[in-house]
Amino acid sequence: MFTNDLVSQNISGHEPYIPGRQPKLNAETIKLNTNENPYPPSPLISDGLHEHIDNLRLYPDSSCEELRNSIAQLHSVDPDEVIIGNGSDDILNLCTRCFSDVSKPIGFFEPSYSLYNVLGSLQGCPVKKIPFQDNTFEIKNDLVSKSKTNLFFITSPHAPTGRTYENSLFSSILKNYRGILVIDEAYADFASTNAINLLKESERLIITRTLSKSYSLAGLRVGYGLGSKKIISVLNRAREVYNVDRIAQYIAWVALNDRDYFSETKTKIINSREKLYSKFKEWGWDTYKSGANFLFTRPVDNNGNSGKDIAQSLFNFLQHHQIFTRYFPAHILTEPYLRISIGKEREMDMLVTKLIQWQTKDLQV
Amino acid sequence: MFTNDLVSQNISGHEPYIPGRQPKLNAETIKLNTNENPYPPSPLISDGLHEHIDNLRLYPDSSCEELRNSIAQLHSVDPDEVIIGNGSDDILNLCTRCFSDVSKPIGFFEPSYSLYNVLGSLQGCPVKKIPFQDNTFEIKNDLVSKSKTNLFFITSPHAPTGRTYENSLFSSILKNYRGILVIDEAYADFASTNAINLLKESERLIITRTLSKSYSLAGLRVGYGLGSKKIISVLNRAREVYNVDRIAQYIAWVALNDRDYFSETKTKIINSREKLYSKFKEWGWDTYKSGANFLFTRPVDNNGNSGKDIAQSLFNFLQHHQIFTRYFPAHILTEPYLRISIGKEREMDMLVTKLIQWQTKDLQV
Repeated sequence: MFTNDLVSQNISGHEPYIPGRQPKLNAETIKLNTNENPYPPSPLISDGLHEHIDNLRLYPDSSCEELRNSIAQLHSVDPDEVIIGNGSDDILNLCTRCFSDVSKPIGFFEPSYSLYNVLGSLQGCPVKKIPFQDNTFEIKNDLVSKSKTNLFFITSPHAPTGRTYENSLFSSILKNYRGILVIDEAYADFASTNAINLLKESERLIITRTLSKSYSLAGLRVGYGLGSKKIISVLNRAREVYNVDRIAQYIAWVALNDRDYFSETKTKIINSREKLYSKFKEWGWDTYKSGANFLFTRPVDNNGNSGKDIAQSLFNFLQHHQIFTRYFPAHILTEPYLRISIGKEREMDMLVTKLIQWQTKDLQV
Repeated sequence: MFTNDLVSQNISGHEPYIPGRQPKLNAETIKLNTNENPYPPSPLISDGLHEHIDNLRLYPDSSCEELRNSIAQLHSVDPDEVIIGNGSDDILNLCTRCFSDVSKPIGFFEPSYSLYNVLGSLQGCPVKKIPFQDNTFEIKNDLVSKSKTNLFFITSPHAPTGRTYENSLFSSILKNYRGILVIDEAYADFASTNAINLLKESERLIITRTLSKSYSLAGLRVGYGLGSKKIISVLNRAREVYNVDRIAQYIAWVALNDRDYFSETKTKIINSREKLYSKFKEWGWDTYKSGANFLFTRPVDNNGNSGKDIAQSLFNFLQHHQIFTRYFPAHILTEPYLRISIGKEREMDMLVTKLIQWQTKDLQV
């Protein structure tokens, strides 16, 4: 008989990560709830795919050499300063495995990416959650340096607001903090700033990236980490040796090297984002300036009201009309807002039409 | 500056898993060193692949529902008794995360799959290595029940010998052992027996399988675990929510459902294995009866000698002729043997030709 005392200490009280809802799609669905890219990945992917199928009988390259070389070139770093993960979540997991334990706490600001807490719980290390003070989501350097943690995660651009942080902040954190700083740049390709240049300044910085958003490859699970050779060699000790499959290595390589397509789709998304941002501002909806492929906005109804109930009401209204967005009612700083991923232009037009309808009509669905 | 005291306790002394050598392949290479399948995967895979590329922009199905349904049907179990991993190594890793900790030791017999030790070290749990008593690689039931472990791994068919174990052994272990028993059946598709029927007998049994060998998908990283709903629900708590990508789910599904191709290639491999086994026996080379896609054989040279040096000499001779096999000099029970993966018929013919040449000629390469 299976009894609960067979379960390890860390898993006994562990709450797993709950991903955004994945509704069954139909032709009418507009899916703006999990920050996926509305455009397909590089059309060059199909060209060479078939030759990789027969080779699937062979193990993949454990070191992902070709992919690491491309990434190293892209960011002007050494290939030994790059590690590839089965999604950037894999890299975040390696960070907790390598740099936290019962006497090495992790820290992060709340609210941000809820996976950090899940990974800390899995690892069984103390977890220090530092609440954001207000809805500016400003970060004070000394909160990190005084956190008494060994590993600290900062999401930049921040999720779910999309706001960005200056490198001067990270520089000063790296000067005062003695632990390992992870800057989770999942959305940085959509921002005008990123922390890559800081890698030269510190051996204790890890930057994580994903191909899920800006390369339209959420379904593929490829992400990467950048850091000093010392850091990367430690992460490699805990990495599953064949963590990234042959097809994923090939597709990621093609997508990374198709810079024209990357720029084209990225620009379209940024343009759509700014257009929607202007619309929200025009309506008087408090909205964060975003460096990501989503907007975090505080809806205002036809009576001039906003807040938790209003956000919930709009979320339901949109869902009823097959438009899926994300709502975070669990935190006081996020409950009056909706997070809306940037879709295709046509999808954004339909969204705006529905939002106008919601603002001007009877709210009953 | 990065200093070693930033590294977590478990990783500080951790020795990672070393995979078999992956030589650069050329037209002459015969690669028989990592138990890959010599045949390409199901030809049906290419047919529907392209439609999955565009959908890569969307996250995969976190629960791998269609793939789990196929596997459940194949083994006559419930879909909730199946968990899919990024390779069966992912499932083995989840087993240590969920069922071992500082006060819950793991155990396994040595030599077997060296990953168990790596996973225990990563998890920071006590590791009990029970040495096989002699080169019969017999397992005594009471060694498991008296091991004072919470989680025990048995490789069946055994690696690197390929020998199989009877279900009566596992039944009696499950009666006497109070912990979780993992039967790692990576090679079971090539055997005439497996432990699937025992899942009905115990809630504390986990069987792991991989598509790497019998489905020719080593490059894809898909494996699965079978167990009681209670066990599977615990493993799911530690599973990365998007651990298996869209393309991998699709390809695995097609390969699993192409039963004709599976049987055809499996039969060819078993026939080649038995033919090579007969040849070794004819030469007087001690060889284990194998339920896997490899043979473990003790080479005898032209002077009638065998042993560590002879095995090493043949390994080098074959490698010089672009035939790669696996040699395990680290253990006294394995050092006089070579492990040879079963390749295509033509490859086996060339191997036999070279082996005859080695036996009858001057051994200098």
